[in-house]
Amino acid sequence: MDLKHTTGRDIRQLARTGELNGPTPGLARGFEQANLVVVPKELAFEFLLFCQRNPQPCPLLDVSDPGDPEPREAAPGADVRTDLPRYRIYRKGNLVEEPTDIRAYWRDDLVAFLLGCSFTFEDALLEAGLPVRHLEAGCNVPMYRTNVPCRAAGMFRGTMTVSMRPMTPVQAKQAAAISATFPRSHGAPIHQGDPATIGIGDITRPDFGDPVEIRTGEIPVFWACGVTPQGIIMDTRPEFCITHKPGHMFVTDWCRRQS
Amino acid sequence: MDLKHTTGRDIRQLARTGELNGPTPGLARGFEQANLVVVPKELAFEFLLFCQRNPQPCPLLDVSDPGDPEPREAAPGADVRTDLPRYRIYRKGNLVEEPTDIRAYWRDDLVAFLLGCSFTFEDALLEAGLPVRHLEAGCNVPMYRTNVPCRAAGMFRGTMTVSMRPMTPVQAKQAAAISATFPRSHGAPIHQGDPATIGIGDITRPDFGDPVEIRTGEIPVFWACGVTPQGIIMDTRPEFCITHKPGHMFVTDWCRRQS
Repeated sequence: MDLKHTTGRDIRQLARTGELNGPTPGLARGFEQANLVVVPKELAFEFLLFCQRNPQPCPLLDVSDPGDPEPREAAPGADVRTDLPRYRIYRKGNLVEEPTDIRAYWRDDLVAFLLGCSFTFEDALLEAGLPVRHLEAGCNVPMYRTNVPCRAAGMFRGTMTVSMRPMTPVQAKQAAAISATFPRSHGAPIHQGDPATIGIGDITRPDFGDPVEIRTGEIPVFWACGVTPQGIIMDTRPEFCITHKPGHMFVTDWCRRQS
Repeated sequence: MDLKHTTGRDIRQLARTGELNGPTPGLARGFEQANLVVVPKELAFEFLLFCQRNPQPCPLLDVSDPGDPEPREAAPGADVRTDLPRYRIYRKGNLVEEPTDIRAYWRDDLVAFLLGCSFTFEDALLEAGLPVRHLEAGCNVPMYRTNVPCRAAGMFRGTMTVSMRPMTPVQAKQAAAISATFPRSHGAPIHQGDPATIGIGDITRPDFGDPVEIRTGEIPVFWACGVTPQGIIMDTRPEFCITHKPGHMFVTDWCRRQS
């Protein structure tokens, strides 16, 4: 199967059967991809409020009822417990496991949040002839924790995580204009140029995902990232959360090519 | 003071001192107005989720931390307990009082939600030369409960409430195009023409606000309304909620004329 030109449903099916357990950039081109955050109901108000207050890193696409693993808007019939390639289990902020299925961890009080993902607009960048280095390299996108503050909501407080794509300044301007039309997928970049300005110490060592080459004449371009909650979970140490493994996304049924 | 051409801050100050206790359409032209819903923290997740799932009637502008009466985004320094002209206290879905100040009802566990309001785009309708009948008549906008279903979230389930402005079909088309550019204020109309189609039995008897004249050649045009939660509170009967009195809005510091 050509995974680049298939549907969200096909990608979810491959993840469900275990045939796909790697990252999803470039797959099911045109389909909206989503970050997953699962928290107990007692934290659900504060986390939903955190997303409402920080729509650039955490654009809300779908929120389940407590105990319901079906994302009824994003993909009716899907199951967030099985349909992502890989998950992360956090206990008191510590990453304790990276399973390919979370049915054994599911509880009646868990609420699943799907947040927009920048992989969604990469299809439009490619169409415009812009480079997407991690797709060229066949790896995951590099992601970095920053010193850019988020608005706090209850226990959820901390800084933004970003994804990075290297481009020339001219290309960066085009990419900014294109991604600005995708507010559900983080919108325009939050920064470009010197990584130190946003608190990134070593651009060659991302906090999540894989490093990519920045060529002569290129600058790093940074977008808000839906892995932001994971950085905050590591710092604020809630009892129990589940997320996707960075880059290993839920692929929805929403497709820009159909609209 | 010319209340049409003053600021949100001025309107709030007049409400705070009790000098203004009437409806707010046409006041502080250009400033975003907002509906208020206050619920105990135990209902806050479900109500926030209801808003997230129903962004056309319930566009979220600002949500307070539990116990905090200051809308820190919409109007830093303001106080939702005193700065609206009139409130409604609901106990088990019954309207028990319409005070001008809710400090006596305030509790540490209350969460305040500000939702967008269609009064916000009336300034743009007037600029385009379109009629706004309730402003011409100097009364409150007419509002109606409908049979249009909302997406449910926990205990919050029911149908949409709408506001109505009479216009000719040509004017209605212009008004739709203008209001569509105000997604934070309910956006484009949800219906125009026959009221029965959306379950309104008698257009001369609104459920909230005042009736207005529909002239020969005009049709009623209906917009989603932030009074929707009040209709749902009446039906689902939560223990305790506070809202604004319909049409008696919180006026924010956000102004389209400054942006």
